[in-house]
Amino acid sequence: MAKDKKSAKKSSAASFSEALRADPGTDLASIDPRSTPGFDGDKEAGQAALAELTDVVSDLQERLFAESKGGGVRSVLLVVQGMDTAGKGGIMRHVVGAVDPQGVDITSFKAPTAEERKHPFLWRIRKALPEPGMIGVFDRSHYEDVLIVRVHDLVPRAQWSRRYGQINTFEESVADKGTTIIKVMLHISKDEQKSRLTERLERPDKHWKFNPGDIDEREHWADYQEAYQAVIDKCSTDVAPWYVVPADRKWFARLAVMQLLKEHLEQLDPQWPVADFDVAAELKRLKKT
Amino acid sequence: MAKDKKSAKKSSAASFSEALRADPGTDLASIDPRSTPGFDGDKEAGQAALAELTDVVSDLQERLFAESKGGGVRSVLLVVQGMDTAGKGGIMRHVVGAVDPQGVDITSFKAPTAEERKHPFLWRIRKALPEPGMIGVFDRSHYEDVLIVRVHDLVPRAQWSRRYGQINTFEESVADKGTTIIKVMLHISKDEQKSRLTERLERPDKHWKFNPGDIDEREHWADYQEAYQAVIDKCSTDVAPWYVVPADRKWFARLAVMQLLKEHLEQLDPQWPVADFDVAAELKRLKKT
Repeated sequence: MAKDKKSAKKSSAASFSEALRADPGTDLASIDPRSTPGFDGDKEAGQAALAELTDVVSDLQERLFAESKGGGVRSVLLVVQGMDTAGKGGIMRHVVGAVDPQGVDITSFKAPTAEERKHPFLWRIRKALPEPGMIGVFDRSHYEDVLIVRVHDLVPRAQWSRRYGQINTFEESVADKGTTIIKVMLHISKDEQKSRLTERLERPDKHWKFNPGDIDEREHWADYQEAYQAVIDKCSTDVAPWYVVPADRKWFARLAVMQLLKEHLEQLDPQWPVADFDVAAELKRLKKT
Repeated sequence: MAKDKKSAKKSSAASFSEALRADPGTDLASIDPRSTPGFDGDKEAGQAALAELTDVVSDLQERLFAESKGGGVRSVLLVVQGMDTAGKGGIMRHVVGAVDPQGVDITSFKAPTAEERKHPFLWRIRKALPEPGMIGVFDRSHYEDVLIVRVHDLVPRAQWSRRYGQINTFEESVADKGTTIIKVMLHISKDEQKSRLTERLERPDKHWKFNPGDIDEREHWADYQEAYQAVIDKCSTDVAPWYVVPADRKWFARLAVMQLLKEHLEQLDPQWPVADFDVAAELKRLKKT
């Protein structure tokens, strides 16, 4: 059985990047938020697959980190977007949290501060880019500047509509410097959001996560979907494609993001750096101490 | 059996803070680095206890984080010190890495940069203090400024000898602002360090962690122990006591630090914030959307 599971995992392993990739023109509305593309198992199988992936991704992450100590400049940037309650926090906790925290750098982008508002929208983003060897993670990102900003016209239309091109130019320069960009949209249904918000209201230990404004935002659901569609159409590029991860099933979303991490890290194939000292001589020297 | 394990854990639970606390005058040389104070189980039992603690600490961490969203100002600062190979990285990975990365902020202090050297030694430390609700973790810390700096006289003696008092004043002000400080010294033997350095040399996937200077530093072992003794004698205070964690057994060191975290968080007893909105009214409003 263990063997079956492994071969099942392997057969789907290479396909998540393909199954979830959303090139321009991909119709968001046609993607079922409860579907599990690239995986044909159930919740239990998905959780088992996630647990198995953890060691593999941890090993790859350590190699990436080690490579940078030998002069490597490569890094990874995982961008996570999604509507309220889409499960961004769960990705941080259960996927990102599964690898060594020393090799991960999470930045959570809130509404910009007064200081941040004085600068171009990419200013705070640049400051949060991952160092060589690191896996940077953005919980929300520069895409908010063409999502909530577009939906509520927080800046004039002429201004936000220029941002798609600015984002593409920016991401190209980031990729050129050795950063692999993985952009994930956690795709939930309006009904699923309702039930998650209901849970937050019904459980006193979840009240702190609730904001009455979350309900008001639901009136703009269609506008947000349109804004996400525009993001896919305009900013899913070869150097930084978007992946749409159906997220009504939390276990699948977590498995999918972990798998995307794994596939991109395997692509990078980071190497242990070669010693820049004489190993035998050092062993001899150590013995004498 | 499960019951036995639980009661065993409970009986030792309250005692780690007491068993490991090193008040001024505690003789470092008299503490066996292979001992397991506060715990009478073996490695397997220790690993099981660590796994069980994870959920408890995760829950407490989430409460602390939530509390800050309701206006709470409390936070935790875990300071981790120890000789090379003492297991600081393992603590980051296996203890700190076991809780939600969104609630944790690790700062790894290296040799100060040119910019940092222009400022007083506490300048970079202040910038890294945890925000309300967070568990800040220092991998090395301001104590390096009275450890390596003292051993190698990197600044004049008159200057480093003033720092103990400056550190106490600083830590008192940090505690006054609501931060619980937990200072941990991972205590290993010179022999154990030798075997860990040997492993780093014998395994190509560990070469990147090795630095020939680590062997040279072994000549100053006694000086470092003396410097740690001075730290305990001068900077183990009521608001920020030192805990000496025997660390020749990695499993014990990890269990002990997790347990120290747990005991201090339990002491804080963080509370879910009370909703500042009308729950029933919001539920009604949500239903209509």
